[in-house]
Amino acid sequence: MKRKVYVPGSRPDLQVPFAEVELTGDNPPVRLYDTSGPLNDPPAGLPALRAPWIAERGPVERTQLYYARQGVVTPEMEFVAIREGVAPELVRDEIAAGRAILPNNVNHPESEPMIIGSRFLVKVNANIGTSAVSSDVAEEVAKLTWATRWGADTVMDLSTGKHIHATREAIVRNSPVPIGTVPIYQALEKVGGDPVKLTWEAYRDTVIEQAEQGVDYMTVHAGVLLRYVPLTTERVTGIVSRGGSIMAAWCLAHHEENFLYTHFADLCEILARYDVAFSLGDGLRPGSIADANDQAQLAELKTLGELTKIAWEHDVQVMIEGPGHVPMHKIKENVDLQMEWCHEAPFYTLGPLTTDVAPAYDHITSAIGAAMIAMYGTAMLCYVTPKEHLGLPDRDDVKAGVIAYKIAAHAADLAKGHPGAQAWDDALSKARFEFRWEDQFNLAMDPDTARAYHDETLPAAPAKTAHFCSMCGPKFCSMRISQDLREYAAQGMREKSEEFAAAGNQVYLPLSTKV
Amino acid sequence: MKRKVYVPGSRPDLQVPFAEVELTGDNPPVRLYDTSGPLNDPPAGLPALRAPWIAERGPVERTQLYYARQGVVTPEMEFVAIREGVAPELVRDEIAAGRAILPNNVNHPESEPMIIGSRFLVKVNANIGTSAVSSDVAEEVAKLTWATRWGADTVMDLSTGKHIHATREAIVRNSPVPIGTVPIYQALEKVGGDPVKLTWEAYRDTVIEQAEQGVDYMTVHAGVLLRYVPLTTERVTGIVSRGGSIMAAWCLAHHEENFLYTHFADLCEILARYDVAFSLGDGLRPGSIADANDQAQLAELKTLGELTKIAWEHDVQVMIEGPGHVPMHKIKENVDLQMEWCHEAPFYTLGPLTTDVAPAYDHITSAIGAAMIAMYGTAMLCYVTPKEHLGLPDRDDVKAGVIAYKIAAHAADLAKGHPGAQAWDDALSKARFEFRWEDQFNLAMDPDTARAYHDETLPAAPAKTAHFCSMCGPKFCSMRISQDLREYAAQGMREKSEEFAAAGNQVYLPLSTKV
Repeated sequence: MKRKVYVPGSRPDLQVPFAEVELTGDNPPVRLYDTSGPLNDPPAGLPALRAPWIAERGPVERTQLYYARQGVVTPEMEFVAIREGVAPELVRDEIAAGRAILPNNVNHPESEPMIIGSRFLVKVNANIGTSAVSSDVAEEVAKLTWATRWGADTVMDLSTGKHIHATREAIVRNSPVPIGTVPIYQALEKVGGDPVKLTWEAYRDTVIEQAEQGVDYMTVHAGVLLRYVPLTTERVTGIVSRGGSIMAAWCLAHHEENFLYTHFADLCEILARYDVAFSLGDGLRPGSIADANDQAQLAELKTLGELTKIAWEHDVQVMIEGPGHVPMHKIKENVDLQMEWCHEAPFYTLGPLTTDVAPAYDHITSAIGAAMIAMYGTAMLCYVTPKEHLGLPDRDDVKAGVIAYKIAAHAADLAKGHPGAQAWDDALSKARFEFRWEDQFNLAMDPDTARAYHDETLPAAPAKTAHFCSMCGPKFCSMRISQDLREYAAQGMREKSEEFAAAGNQVYLPLSTKV
Repeated sequence: MKRKVYVPGSRPDLQVPFAEVELTGDNPPVRLYDTSGPLNDPPAGLPALRAPWIAERGPVERTQLYYARQGVVTPEMEFVAIREGVAPELVRDEIAAGRAILPNNVNHPESEPMIIGSRFLVKVNANIGTSAVSSDVAEEVAKLTWATRWGADTVMDLSTGKHIHATREAIVRNSPVPIGTVPIYQALEKVGGDPVKLTWEAYRDTVIEQAEQGVDYMTVHAGVLLRYVPLTTERVTGIVSRGGSIMAAWCLAHHEENFLYTHFADLCEILARYDVAFSLGDGLRPGSIADANDQAQLAELKTLGELTKIAWEHDVQVMIEGPGHVPMHKIKENVDLQMEWCHEAPFYTLGPLTTDVAPAYDHITSAIGAAMIAMYGTAMLCYVTPKEHLGLPDRDDVKAGVIAYKIAAHAADLAKGHPGAQAWDDALSKARFEFRWEDQFNLAMDPDTARAYHDETLPAAPAKTAHFCSMCGPKFCSMRISQDLREYAAQGMREKSEEFAAAGNQVYLPLSTKV
């Protein structure tokens, strides 16, 4: 059985959620990180968990980065420390150094604090949102709840088309995780869809509108500079970021520098007032293997590093978005350059996809790249669903994408030796070896599907206690033979010891010399 | 449209198959490696393609390793060279050095030659087979055809239970790819399922029976030595290889050395007569993250290196099986040790799974590890299906496993810079950028699913020529904007050049200095 438990912090209103899996026999329960939030079905808005913490800090808004730099451990930081199983001071120090962010708009008090940084568990973002072609508000809220149920650590609302404001309002009010957006999409709607008509003022007003609603981080394509645009014209796939292509079109049409770049300090002042974090967008990310790590991509990355410093001067938290499509042998270079040029600000990558040839399976082509890039230090992974390049993800695609990415993230946690990560694997493997089928299902990342697959070939209840499964059948089961062996070996050792004693304590020849 | 084409070799009966994808417009067709074999539906046995080549070599059987060492390029080697797009001498030299194998039992003349080695395309094996609990012969042959249709390079028949001989006969006679087996399974059936009753004679007769039928490579767990068995008793998951656990049980029960080890030279003599290759089994591979790269695993690996040398003395081709469950940071060490201790004999790994916590998704947990281990030099990957640990794979699982592994293999080909590998990605990405939807589907690893996913949201035929898709809709399409940009930039450059000329050839300020 899996149930939600809360671990109390230093104050009564600080209760940190975990999913606790109870096991059979005398096996201790396993506690897992939990993103699902309070039960909220049908969605009627979540309680404002953080409201008292925010109120206590008084009328002048400051960011978590500001407090961390002052040496303060906020309740949000303590919450995160309990969640991650680390010291609160580590959380504070990593935020203060800019190596981690704790995205939490003061107008989104419903969110459960979480942290994004390479010293912490690797996080996963799920994209949802309406488009001009399909989707409605209720469906998007359902996708949000579904995504966090399966482990999404943040959700980006990428809505375009009509009802952007209303969709976002419903999402923020019902989200236990930070919400990210790309404000340029809504700004573009406001000017009738023509990039050339965009203005700083229209954009600024949109950012304020979204910050007021409670958006926790915003993708800003401020690194798409006028002079970088020509670097993309010889690419196989040009510019594949929507925001990047919009800003590139604006720059070329006006022959002026990107207004997000020229107004970056103004933006910082707005974001600081709400503690909205920057997600500095990679508008020039590669859209194909051929374009990976090219001049355009790397030129923009360097600019994002400059902007990071400016944001930090304003106490605004920053993470850096990354590609995209990258063959495996170029992944490490990406992380190394990002770390160096962006001063270790957390990296947040889309995949990367490690090949272009498998549309309909890009959750897999990219889970490979995501696991690797996270192992090298990427802090958050933006999921890719099976529908990538083909259509909008439905409920099943959202789940497939989240699970593929939770796998990549956990594999990276293991590879990085995150304290406690392997306990989950060990508990499941022990259950597997001991034929505790129900424990194995309950510990699985997706218990429903694991149970269903097992039941397809051995549906009877007794099979769930059987000491074999349908793969080998009773005669060939290596696990069963191996358990017999363990007993046999223990027995054999005992007999040998007795022989040894009986033989007058001659030096005992262990099994290993008996060939 | 995808169609099969044949490229002729130096003799009329040497015709190498490829899948050729015709593209629209003046885009050149793309030729892809093809494993599907002759059309054979319903299965009525395949033509004996290699019969004349085998007959020409006379009554005394020799292995491809023997011929390679003599400096001979056999028709099989030439076939492989054309398939891989490399010089026949490279094929010959890699086989001669033991760094590659060309598994092809003289009694399986229906097979289309292929090569397994780190200098060549990474290969994928699919496991099929009946078990005591389920499956019938026709269904297994259908799985074989299905697996090779999606790209399986070899197929292992792991049948246990009844009808092992008949199942294998049907599979070999209908297989265009090499067939592997694990003879100990059938030998165990012959002695009533009790490992203790196994004998060298029963095993030997089984190997001869299978070699006579045409099995191309055999997994032999000759490295499970008596003294290694106690090394497994403290593991989280003991011994998880069926063959490994059977031999360990035999060793302990008799307190004698593994008869596969003591009779290894005898086995070599049998295998040499048919040119059956060894796949030296990793009976002590880790079955969990906790057990990865442990003493038991590494002790056995070293023994497999010793056995490799013995096999080579008998001109028998060898590959080495590898794990299993390995966290990402321990994968490279595995390959490095295998290369060193096994004298660069090709490595053939099951995954590895990079975490234990996602039963029902182990095609993904392991595709991550498979891509990485292949990048580091593994020559063939044994697939894992979504049913791993839970049940027997059905048709859908076989496809899911093969495709996840073809993705891993191709990602590794790209990372290794295999000549020609990226042409496929480039062709697909160019089609994507130019909104050639039909070309994109036809170039996809799985055209059916890619097309179906696209049609879910934009089913009308005009959508397939539309310059946008359901993800962004017409207004936000980055690809469309990006194409406009390309034209715009070209136009802008021209105008600037004209200005420059008009201004009397002053030094032109390129866009990049106009910030």
